[in-house]
Amino acid sequence: MSILVVGSVAFDSVETPFGKADDVLGGSATYFSTSASYFTDVRLVAVIGEDFPDIHVAQLKEKGIDLAGLKKVPGKTFRWKGRYDYDLNQAHTLETHLNVFSSFNPEIPESYKDSPFVFLANIDPELQMKVLEQVKRPRLVACDTMNFWIEGKPDALKKLLKNVDLFVINEGEAREFSGQASLVKAAKYILNGGPKTLIIKRGEYGALMFNGKSMFSAPAYPLEDIFDPTGAGDTFAGGLMGYLANTGDLSEENIRKAIVFGSVMASFNVEAFSLERLNVLTLEEIRGRFSEFKRLTHFEDI
Amino acid sequence: MSILVVGSVAFDSVETPFGKADDVLGGSATYFSTSASYFTDVRLVAVIGEDFPDIHVAQLKEKGIDLAGLKKVPGKTFRWKGRYDYDLNQAHTLETHLNVFSSFNPEIPESYKDSPFVFLANIDPELQMKVLEQVKRPRLVACDTMNFWIEGKPDALKKLLKNVDLFVINEGEAREFSGQASLVKAAKYILNGGPKTLIIKRGEYGALMFNGKSMFSAPAYPLEDIFDPTGAGDTFAGGLMGYLANTGDLSEENIRKAIVFGSVMASFNVEAFSLERLNVLTLEEIRGRFSEFKRLTHFEDI
Repeated sequence: MSILVVGSVAFDSVETPFGKADDVLGGSATYFSTSASYFTDVRLVAVIGEDFPDIHVAQLKEKGIDLAGLKKVPGKTFRWKGRYDYDLNQAHTLETHLNVFSSFNPEIPESYKDSPFVFLANIDPELQMKVLEQVKRPRLVACDTMNFWIEGKPDALKKLLKNVDLFVINEGEAREFSGQASLVKAAKYILNGGPKTLIIKRGEYGALMFNGKSMFSAPAYPLEDIFDPTGAGDTFAGGLMGYLANTGDLSEENIRKAIVFGSVMASFNVEAFSLERLNVLTLEEIRGRFSEFKRLTHFEDI
Repeated sequence: MSILVVGSVAFDSVETPFGKADDVLGGSATYFSTSASYFTDVRLVAVIGEDFPDIHVAQLKEKGIDLAGLKKVPGKTFRWKGRYDYDLNQAHTLETHLNVFSSFNPEIPESYKDSPFVFLANIDPELQMKVLEQVKRPRLVACDTMNFWIEGKPDALKKLLKNVDLFVINEGEAREFSGQASLVKAAKYILNGGPKTLIIKRGEYGALMFNGKSMFSAPAYPLEDIFDPTGAGDTFAGGLMGYLANTGDLSEENIRKAIVFGSVMASFNVEAFSLERLNVLTLEEIRGRFSEFKRLTHFEDI
């Protein structure tokens, strides 16, 4: 089944302890859709400027991503510049130039409106809501957000969450949004506001799933080198949603597997700058690392 | 099989966001031996001052802990005062009074010298070495340490590690000791120096095991409230070593299970101040939480 993703397509300049990359392809919708493309059809809605090169468009097309919703407008593409120190869980933003992204008002093409799976990447919650108003009863709506919206538009975010099935945010944001230091309490608060399932991303510590009945903990894969964590969260969401859409199975057992597939995709993504690693994956590599996750977490029952 | 533990018995004064406790029973050997006592016989070596009340001695005896090596000497018992903020992974030491612990020179009673399992809790690595010189070829030697010894006595620690089978330290210490930001690289460095198995404790993020061939990741149990993390690491080690000594099985599969038992014991310990929760556990509760860990980490294979 198809997934509609609405988010950003951007140029990133990134410095990590392992090197630097300037003006490379990035953006939440880019990472999400490339990751999900290994599992299912993806329909992308985003905005780019006149400076966006055809080669990047071709790269997304090659992954089979539907670009009917990728709009080129006068001006420059969204640019982000950031730095990571040895604590790779923490991005330090050096520059943000929203450019054409500042007037982004997502219009969902007619051919996308029946998408059974919808992922609202991190944008203004009012725009996320506008997307939902344009689509026909999806089977699953998932969304992400960030501290900027938690602080700036909490009411719009709370309204949105009433219409969201699966909410994916990071640990610090879960604490900030709920006002709870305990993630178990934070999860109760958040699930009470609408979502049936909450997934808390913890960077190199993995992810936690809450659904009000049970909890699931998935580790991150311990890697020799994490070259660049940029996009890991959206890549995770892409693998997660991709597997759910591929199987069409929304049972808790399948959501657990989907979280591991998300973790698998994120573990590849951080091995190189930009989408360098994500672009050249094989299904065999993905299945192989899934098995490594199985072994990584295995212990016998008593 | 019996475990010999050498470490501290202390009074702790602790403040957390959930309350405070003054001059309560603490110390690495206390937490370790109480935790391990649910699985096997424990022989304790530590020093206390004249101010140490009989009621605490009785409490340890009640757990079946052999106290032939608990020496009472003139002076006051070791006292530690600390504070935890909402980041419960990080203890802030307010006061340390070593008192009688400052001249601790562990003498192993004759009746302890055949102990097949030895746990050297966090003390001066030169003293840890002296303990090993007094015992007869144990089946398994495990040890802990801290940044103070990594910085102050790195050579003594490196010498000790050549004689250690299982090394248990926390994440920051693994990075500091190895000079590597990547835990995978840190593990390679540490295993190269002697230990066959390395377990890296990550507080609320669980534990990672490395043995040069494979990796195992165990989560911590997500709790509504963590009242007091003091002693969690030693309680973890007590459950781990207790289960290994109980089964006598040092295979990787059994070490994985033992790590989960360690995590189970630590998850109970943090639910209350001092040993309040640890002292009143039942085997049924321990097995019940083990099953919860199984469910917490379960996902189907592809």
